[in-house]
Amino acid sequence: MKTFEKTERTTLKRLPARGVYDRELVYAILDQGLICHVGFAVEGRPFVIPTGYARHGEQLYIHGSQASRMLRTLKSGINVCVTVTLLDGLVLARSAFHHSMNYRSVVVFGRATKVDDPADKVAALLTFSEHVIPGRWNDVREPTEQELKATTVLSLPLEEVSAKVRTGPPLDDEEDYELPVWAGVIPLQLVAAAPIPDPRLEVSIEPPSYASAYKRRS
Amino acid sequence: MKTFEKTERTTLKRLPARGVYDRELVYAILDQGLICHVGFAVEGRPFVIPTGYARHGEQLYIHGSQASRMLRTLKSGINVCVTVTLLDGLVLARSAFHHSMNYRSVVVFGRATKVDDPADKVAALLTFSEHVIPGRWNDVREPTEQELKATTVLSLPLEEVSAKVRTGPPLDDEEDYELPVWAGVIPLQLVAAAPIPDPRLEVSIEPPSYASAYKRRS
Repeated sequence: MKTFEKTERTTLKRLPARGVYDRELVYAILDQGLICHVGFAVEGRPFVIPTGYARHGEQLYIHGSQASRMLRTLKSGINVCVTVTLLDGLVLARSAFHHSMNYRSVVVFGRATKVDDPADKVAALLTFSEHVIPGRWNDVREPTEQELKATTVLSLPLEEVSAKVRTGPPLDDEEDYELPVWAGVIPLQLVAAAPIPDPRLEVSIEPPSYASAYKRRS
Repeated sequence: MKTFEKTERTTLKRLPARGVYDRELVYAILDQGLICHVGFAVEGRPFVIPTGYARHGEQLYIHGSQASRMLRTLKSGINVCVTVTLLDGLVLARSAFHHSMNYRSVVVFGRATKVDDPADKVAALLTFSEHVIPGRWNDVREPTEQELKATTVLSLPLEEVSAKVRTGPPLDDEEDYELPVWAGVIPLQLVAAAPIPDPRLEVSIEPPSYASAYKRRS
């Protein structure tokens, strides 16, 4: 299926033109982002926790310490909502009312399951590493058996998913276009600065290109 | 009170050293961010929606269309969790296991109330505008009565609040410091590019400095 099936939860009631269900577009947003916000409810009370993630095919992985309260709660299979948001710009209209932001966001609903098989866990951590810094995994010490045991990996199927996208210039009321006010978009992007070596790094070790020229795909 | 009182929900169980309850630090994070993630549960099912926000004293404002499903749900006074996350860098350790991210995040728990008084609503929208683009409000057409009616503003008290912060270099296992692997931090920042004028803008109108030199406080 090239598109996600709409459900009650993923159908945009307002501004339906901003809704996106195309798999490739959804995947592109997920593959560009670094942080997701994980939402779940305990006794009706909501929690929203930021964490890293990575997509592998039609699965979204999140991971963390075995002791993490969030992961221990989620692995019981309760309903979860994971949202990834990329802020692309500020939209300056001629009226206060029509100011907006350009963004791309993805919302995933579902239930996570724990990845138990050690080989699958290592594969998920590799996916995670490649998602954040392509090329890094080959340079570092791989996880020990003990470290693997201390790590919980959860997998969330990309089944009930939608994206929401706003792009382009402001949309003003017709009569406001005459106002002598600058209008347009201030583009925003997550940009890397020069890498800062660990104070304990031996000075002869140069930063690899994935660190010195880090750039997020877009 | 200079610090937020810890509650069951805001007390970090793991890595308590990362917990921050100082009001000024929390406010600095909220004042730098542009997007929050709003979490709430409907019949036990969680939703996480990105939206803009602004802080005014000890209140957090969110706003949007009167028709917004999220705002209509929240204004009933249900439990909400609002999270703001700033991603400051990627932390490259010598082992895969100790890779991390530098970030600052704030989590607010509470119940929102609707701002009804028109003067209070305008004040909230001004706060909102100044939060995103200081100086912009004075240049644009103010909201009409009809636009105000079409806008819902909610206020969430900053009472049950905590922040979580990671900064600094990687923390490797002692024996891994000998490995010939580059380690350190790749700093990340949300950066503005040159403003893009609205295609319908009269060419003689120059971008104001808040657009041509937009910079997020940090």
